[in-house]
Amino acid sequence: MSSSGFFILTPICSIGALVFALYLALSIMREDEGNDKMKEIALAVRVGARAYLKRQYLGVALFFAVMFIILLWMASQKYLVIFVPFAFLTGGFFSGLSGFIGMTVATQSSNRTAAAAMKSLNSGLRVAFSSGAVMGLTVVGLGLLHLAAWYYFLDWYYSGHPIPANMDKITAITSAMLTFSMGASSLALFARVGGGIFTKAADVGADLVGKVEAGIPEDDPRNPAVIADNVGDNVGDVAGMGADLFESYVGAIVATSALGVAAGLGVAGVTVPMVMAAVGIIASVIGTFFVSTKEDATQQALLTALRKGVWGSSLIMAIASYFLVRWILGVEHIGIYWSVLAGLLAGVIIGVVTEYYTSSSFKPTKSIADQSLTGPATVIIAGLSVGMMSTALPVLVVGAAILASYFLSGGASDFNAGLYGIAIAGVGMLSTLGITLATDAYGPVADNAGGNAEMAGLPPEVRKRTDALDSLGNTTAATGKGFAIGSAALTALGLIAAFNSQVVLLGKTMNLSLLNPNLLVGLFIGGMLPFLFCSMTMRAVGRAAGLIVVEVRRQFKEIAGLMQGKANPDYARCVTIATAAAQKEMVLPSLLAIVAPVLTGILIGLEAEMGLLAGATVTGFVLAVMMANSGGAWDNAKKYIEEGYHGGKGSQAHKAAVVGDTVGDPFKDTSGPSLNILIKLMSIVAIVFASFVMSVSLF
Amino acid sequence: MSSSGFFILTPICSIGALVFALYLALSIMREDEGNDKMKEIALAVRVGARAYLKRQYLGVALFFAVMFIILLWMASQKYLVIFVPFAFLTGGFFSGLSGFIGMTVATQSSNRTAAAAMKSLNSGLRVAFSSGAVMGLTVVGLGLLHLAAWYYFLDWYYSGHPIPANMDKITAITSAMLTFSMGASSLALFARVGGGIFTKAADVGADLVGKVEAGIPEDDPRNPAVIADNVGDNVGDVAGMGADLFESYVGAIVATSALGVAAGLGVAGVTVPMVMAAVGIIASVIGTFFVSTKEDATQQALLTALRKGVWGSSLIMAIASYFLVRWILGVEHIGIYWSVLAGLLAGVIIGVVTEYYTSSSFKPTKSIADQSLTGPATVIIAGLSVGMMSTALPVLVVGAAILASYFLSGGASDFNAGLYGIAIAGVGMLSTLGITLATDAYGPVADNAGGNAEMAGLPPEVRKRTDALDSLGNTTAATGKGFAIGSAALTALGLIAAFNSQVVLLGKTMNLSLLNPNLLVGLFIGGMLPFLFCSMTMRAVGRAAGLIVVEVRRQFKEIAGLMQGKANPDYARCVTIATAAAQKEMVLPSLLAIVAPVLTGILIGLEAEMGLLAGATVTGFVLAVMMANSGGAWDNAKKYIEEGYHGGKGSQAHKAAVVGDTVGDPFKDTSGPSLNILIKLMSIVAIVFASFVMSVSLF
Repeated sequence: MSSSGFFILTPICSIGALVFALYLALSIMREDEGNDKMKEIALAVRVGARAYLKRQYLGVALFFAVMFIILLWMASQKYLVIFVPFAFLTGGFFSGLSGFIGMTVATQSSNRTAAAAMKSLNSGLRVAFSSGAVMGLTVVGLGLLHLAAWYYFLDWYYSGHPIPANMDKITAITSAMLTFSMGASSLALFARVGGGIFTKAADVGADLVGKVEAGIPEDDPRNPAVIADNVGDNVGDVAGMGADLFESYVGAIVATSALGVAAGLGVAGVTVPMVMAAVGIIASVIGTFFVSTKEDATQQALLTALRKGVWGSSLIMAIASYFLVRWILGVEHIGIYWSVLAGLLAGVIIGVVTEYYTSSSFKPTKSIADQSLTGPATVIIAGLSVGMMSTALPVLVVGAAILASYFLSGGASDFNAGLYGIAIAGVGMLSTLGITLATDAYGPVADNAGGNAEMAGLPPEVRKRTDALDSLGNTTAATGKGFAIGSAALTALGLIAAFNSQVVLLGKTMNLSLLNPNLLVGLFIGGMLPFLFCSMTMRAVGRAAGLIVVEVRRQFKEIAGLMQGKANPDYARCVTIATAAAQKEMVLPSLLAIVAPVLTGILIGLEAEMGLLAGATVTGFVLAVMMANSGGAWDNAKKYIEEGYHGGKGSQAHKAAVVGDTVGDPFKDTSGPSLNILIKLMSIVAIVFASFVMSVSLF
Repeated sequence: MSSSGFFILTPICSIGALVFALYLALSIMREDEGNDKMKEIALAVRVGARAYLKRQYLGVALFFAVMFIILLWMASQKYLVIFVPFAFLTGGFFSGLSGFIGMTVATQSSNRTAAAAMKSLNSGLRVAFSSGAVMGLTVVGLGLLHLAAWYYFLDWYYSGHPIPANMDKITAITSAMLTFSMGASSLALFARVGGGIFTKAADVGADLVGKVEAGIPEDDPRNPAVIADNVGDNVGDVAGMGADLFESYVGAIVATSALGVAAGLGVAGVTVPMVMAAVGIIASVIGTFFVSTKEDATQQALLTALRKGVWGSSLIMAIASYFLVRWILGVEHIGIYWSVLAGLLAGVIIGVVTEYYTSSSFKPTKSIADQSLTGPATVIIAGLSVGMMSTALPVLVVGAAILASYFLSGGASDFNAGLYGIAIAGVGMLSTLGITLATDAYGPVADNAGGNAEMAGLPPEVRKRTDALDSLGNTTAATGKGFAIGSAALTALGLIAAFNSQVVLLGKTMNLSLLNPNLLVGLFIGGMLPFLFCSMTMRAVGRAAGLIVVEVRRQFKEIAGLMQGKANPDYARCVTIATAAAQKEMVLPSLLAIVAPVLTGILIGLEAEMGLLAGATVTGFVLAVMMANSGGAWDNAKKYIEEGYHGGKGSQAHKAAVVGDTVGDPFKDTSGPSLNILIKLMSIVAIVFASFVMSVSLF
């Protein structure tokens, strides 16, 4: 079969993924919705989440309109090919759509998961996991379909229209498509940052007044911010994450395609990542059938249940990619297969390392729990320290993956082949995204199911089941973030290399020496940007949470009989406040990603911009791992104490652990997971604006 | 005058500095020692501090012995010139001696400062500042004298002995001297880390049980850890800081000298940094006479008093260096002067920025205090956020200084001249170290004077005066750290460039392209190392503090009548515990600095080692600024609340702020300030081991 023959798998598998997702969604809808109270709560969350998303998409639409005009102007000045502005729109649209669909299903699934958990743990797991799988398959299905459609269109277009100078057809196609993930990345950043601010402002606000001041349990219906908290799980951890991983997936594939063509592989260089992603979808769907558990399963058994799915899919991919590379590229390029395997393996190892540092079964998280005996300060110091320590192994693993994928694909004799190897390792890591995202997106559904059960006053054994599912979700979420950031490092390197090729194509050779002072200064600026970005997003959470705290306190004071359960709080007001705050606060950090590289390029030159991208990738990677793992470990240390250690719930130790968990919230759900988008978006912005920056740069 | 004529200023000024320091020390000794109780307390602190330093120097001596043998073996194998092992010893010795002298004077000054504060605020300031000045002048005096002595020795030696192949005499001299700061840096790292662990373990331990659990004030004599806490200020903030800045000073000068010779400036390239440092000593001494204040001075007035000294010295330097460069290098090299000025200016700006982010007169620190109303979690989030935000301007300022010093000294046409410009900007920044260090080292003396006043039960107005002096010390300490880390970035770049020259000299040309995968992996590893290092040191503080907490609790429980003030606590036991813990815990993080670059070089190649150094410099710089400023801001936010805001002392807000301050302790006094040594020590290790690594590297 020719390589274009294989290509047909791409639309087939992506449409297949969407059909299977639809089937899963429909079967979720057929599940029992629970009693009226449960339905009512779920409806409130659904309404709040939709309202938020509507407002967010309106705000983002404005940004997209402005950017579209800028890109259109740039295209009219020949800085860009004309497709870029339009692909920017479609990328953003499908990224947003992925998030929207995932969230819609998730908000339908929480009460159904709670209802199923009334029957058994396994039923609950099945519903929640199906909801996650819908999300996972929607993201990969839409992502791949979007790329395939553009590929076919450009292929058709360039068959009848002139190809840009100095290019052959496939170079023209990939060079255009490279810029297409800018729309997806922009939307993802807004969704992650905005959703992240919303969810953590609501969570922190609800906890600070509810748990700490008023002493009522989590998800207590008397807490006015409790619906906002549940809405937040959906808009941040589901919709935000969906958009985020859509962006990762698309970005990895287009970067690899472009480098494949630069490596002289022609159409086959594009076919490999696309078809590998397509086969990854099949592997993911097969994997979903492996996931089930039995009643009274331990945490470890539940984790094994999910792992069977993920590792099963990875194994299928490990085998299938061998034949794919062999058939499409020929046995002389089999080295590329080893690069893919390096990426897959690195992903699995990062997952295991993440679990070690964030699960309460192991020493690091237990050590944080131990420190709770001496108060909140030592909990914070221990948590930061665990997070910082946890960066070492992922860096070494990613480093090993970079070297392995570079040299195994022939980098020693052919630089471009090596770069292609690095990029395709990223695709390998993400190829099973369908199922890894399912295990990740399952978490917030379980979390919401717990909230639903608590607010609806379901019997304690149900809450115990949803708690077990939720706690598992913390670990899978941390693992998922490890995947996202690990692949981001590889993809960002691919994009940086692509940026260099783009500049070379424009006729300029950069002095990329580490001792070039402009590049060094760029490296410093880039190294600082993730810190600045995290500062902005954490302050935003702090400010927004402050507004929620004031509102919750006000309601506790002004609504008579609220604490006695005789009157209802005004849930909607908290949702509105969080929505407005998130919208306002997401603007500046997101603009940073676009303005910083362009401005650096103009003022200190393209070499400084290269330095900036490299510096941001390094610091962003390390900081993201640290924040995700600190946050996960604090959360699980708190849960560990709640299981009865160190005095259990309500003890001084528990109060100290809650402080850690609260600090960890913006770490793991706002600032940390946005960083992987930040570094890729900056790289894509650099590529898109390269020609423009070159023509106006002062250096 | 010939350039060697100018050189004579170096030994003259350094001996002058030591003589003036001796004069100041003697005049401090003539001050009133206070009453018997005050003498007794001071004695206890002095004894504890000496005991600690003795034990630390014994442990470090062992390390030096091992390294000496390794270096001796390397010299025997011709990997190094034979002077390196000996210079390693002398560097370590003088660095340790600087710390020892500074600490001896500081421990004599605390009770005298308290006694002087009984008279007036100005008397107290004068004694405390004199003590700081002794330290500052000792550091610069010994540092410069050590370098001058080696220079004269090598100059004499190479006049009668064969010069190594491919070198002229001055190259042989500077190439040997370049490695001489390894001893100083090694000792500094041990002193900073060990002292930092001691001081913060004692401080955190004392606060956690005393202030938080038992509710007794800071420095209350009933607290068994109170003497250890005061000892800690001396061994960490005085002896550690002295060794640290000795290392910075020496490192900056030797790196600049080596680059000056590489830039073809010959002996003059060495003379300029040396003589500039010498003139900086004169400027510093003049500056000390500007420092005085009047009774009832506000914080701002006190700060102005110190600033008059620092800025006065900087102004003198700014004028003097013009003539120095003109006379020694000639008017055609006047660009070098502008590089020096860029460094001086960058130092002053970083100081101002640091003050903005850490002083309670400004918004950032006030915003942390505001967040204390919603509890410790929001205090932590706000403090981290302020610290992260505060990295932006220093990075931009240092970036501007790099570009300015590179291009103004002629980098556009001569790469080596540009590198010399960057390095000499670092010397410019440090030239007034005599006085900036005086304002910094003054802080712990004031802090201890407060402790002495409190424990001796002096009247409240005395404590108020020492508190005012202490609070000022927090700001000057933060400013001093800004200086240390700002100059470290410039020096580290100089050392990285020198490492490259060294490798070139050895006959290998490195591929320093940012897209070289080995270099990229090195960049990742280097970017991660500061995080790993901070994790290790923070855990160490946590563990050591835990031991103190247990001991203090035990004494409160077991010693009858302790809380009623009827029985004395066992102070010495806390000192012993902290000493033992610090010695044990300082080993691993310090070894990291030596093992990581060598191992990376062997396993992934010299290019990866270059990447590692650059990555560590970037992340280390940003992280150090963040940690120093977060810590300073938390401390001052707490002090701000203690002035009566948000409910004042003992309120919930105050308790929350104490948590922030406690987290900030290891940030600002252990992990953060060690980073600047870490990045330079790794660079020097790379240089020293370059020849060895090259011969055994696998890549």
